[in-house]
Amino acid sequence: MKVSELGEFGLIDLLAGMVADAADTESPAQRDLILRIGDDTAAWQGDSSIQLATSDTMVQNIHFKLDFTPWEDLGWQVMTANLSDIAAMGGIPRYALVSLSMPGSTEVDNITSLYRGMIELTRKHGVVIAGGNITAAPVIIINITVLGSTGNKILKRSEAVPGDKIAVTGYLGAAAAGLKVLSGDIKPDSTAQETLKQAFLRPHPRIKEGQILVEKGVKAAIDISDGLIADLGHICKSSKVGAQIETPLVPVHPAIISGFDREPLVLALSGGEDYELLFTAPENVIKSVREAVSCPVTIIGDITREKSGKITVIDENGDEISPVSSGWTHF
Amino acid sequence: MKVSELGEFGLIDLLAGMVADAADTESPAQRDLILRIGDDTAAWQGDSSIQLATSDTMVQNIHFKLDFTPWEDLGWQVMTANLSDIAAMGGIPRYALVSLSMPGSTEVDNITSLYRGMIELTRKHGVVIAGGNITAAPVIIINITVLGSTGNKILKRSEAVPGDKIAVTGYLGAAAAGLKVLSGDIKPDSTAQETLKQAFLRPHPRIKEGQILVEKGVKAAIDISDGLIADLGHICKSSKVGAQIETPLVPVHPAIISGFDREPLVLALSGGEDYELLFTAPENVIKSVREAVSCPVTIIGDITREKSGKITVIDENGDEISPVSSGWTHF
Repeated sequence: MKVSELGEFGLIDLLAGMVADAADTESPAQRDLILRIGDDTAAWQGDSSIQLATSDTMVQNIHFKLDFTPWEDLGWQVMTANLSDIAAMGGIPRYALVSLSMPGSTEVDNITSLYRGMIELTRKHGVVIAGGNITAAPVIIINITVLGSTGNKILKRSEAVPGDKIAVTGYLGAAAAGLKVLSGDIKPDSTAQETLKQAFLRPHPRIKEGQILVEKGVKAAIDISDGLIADLGHICKSSKVGAQIETPLVPVHPAIISGFDREPLVLALSGGEDYELLFTAPENVIKSVREAVSCPVTIIGDITREKSGKITVIDENGDEISPVSSGWTHF
Repeated sequence: MKVSELGEFGLIDLLAGMVADAADTESPAQRDLILRIGDDTAAWQGDSSIQLATSDTMVQNIHFKLDFTPWEDLGWQVMTANLSDIAAMGGIPRYALVSLSMPGSTEVDNITSLYRGMIELTRKHGVVIAGGNITAAPVIIINITVLGSTGNKILKRSEAVPGDKIAVTGYLGAAAAGLKVLSGDIKPDSTAQETLKQAFLRPHPRIKEGQILVEKGVKAAIDISDGLIADLGHICKSSKVGAQIETPLVPVHPAIISGFDREPLVLALSGGEDYELLFTAPENVIKSVREAVSCPVTIIGDITREKSGKITVIDENGDEISPVSSGWTHF
């Protein structure tokens, strides 16, 4: 069987199973492990706090195209993807390792621009680039690992329970719309253009908000990197629950409304890379989060008892609809 | 300027300088940082122990060829490279993150074989594969991050001082010779063939030995991944010292002696991927290390006052020679 037939998530499940089967319960590292493969980050009990670690690889022409992503923005983007994984655990990111692979013909100035973007974002969040490595490769490959920590509580994908409301921070769909603006697919008015391009090129990881979620008692969260429906699917699968979303409640980014041929809702439901946080909790907990953060927090639906993980999407007439795409997946 | 003109180490220096210039001394992560970019691993002060982190990317047809490296051995090899970096700090490796990138046409069975090799080695050392990710790419790319820790002392590249003796664990050149056997370049007798192939395909990280080095008071070490001369060069540059090696002292692997056209010494001086530890210390410290470890420990020369970092290689007649290659470097 080919990897393309099994799919990204099938392969992850298979490998996670191999690792779990080989687990040596005598090993101190195994004993201290809090989360196995399959959440936003790995997590283990450190000396006096929970340690978090996440690693992501971005490959040229698969995850990014240099045609419409300037190097400095690319550095910011890939660092956001990793800091956002720590945010989705409610953690504080502290150190980053950057492994760069590139053809020898790459301009040094481009690599320093890439680093400038990474440094700008890491400085903003008190994160230090502490290591990494440089190797040759036929295309640009950027792997970033971020290490962080939390006190004694974390946000997990597996903690959603029936009766929880589903909420998101901020607005959705802007990054996907921004990519369409940059690639010339759509041409909204110039203010919206700029807003959407920035949403794609300079997304902000919700680090402070993730910490507030933990403080306020939220237990289940994920960051929206693959798309709302896809990432909600990860929560449902891990938690063995279903979900129902009401489309009139979904906070479509205001800049998407004007000048778009394509359905703004599709971008909000399926567009990835907004790096907003998606979480579930009782309504009063969500209310206390809303009071504590400075961004919008919107309830968009409910966690249900559907153990199959089914996500039902209901439109303004109360009819069930099928979102056209369930988000980014490899292979 | 192109990356190929600046070179791997020039680029690392440039980027490390950018990161250092941007350092925010108010950041707790910066305050706790023990080692900046440029040693075998990053290191920072954790809650009650020193935390170590290292990340390496291996790209198909650049770092490995599937023609003569079976998948399971490849998994073992790439994991060794990372565990060895922790060993070179005197640390205990604890968690690994594995990021795999591959074409969709890759056989799933090959990926599970790769994982089997990684799992076999990690289990041996009590290390847990705790996370990672899977993405598409035009060739196989394996990035591994390993997190570890030590009590309150580490081995650094920058601690060699004039008067130190230079020592290595084990024998040298076997991995490079094994690669030549596998690629059909050389054909020694069958026992030697098997030994050398295994040295290349299944190298052992010197984890226990690294910890003994720290315990016995060694301060400067590196693992031999690029080649003896190249890695000694990293120590000399970081420590602002020179070195003198006497070739009759260099412990060439016994299996290389017979049936080789090429100079065995060249393989021992310049062949990489043996993952032995190279360290410097006063002679009595090296003696106490030798008594505590179960592998050979051989003194091969002296650290000198040459601030330029010059390495002098002296042959059996006392004449200075130039090794033909100074080891692996990218671009």
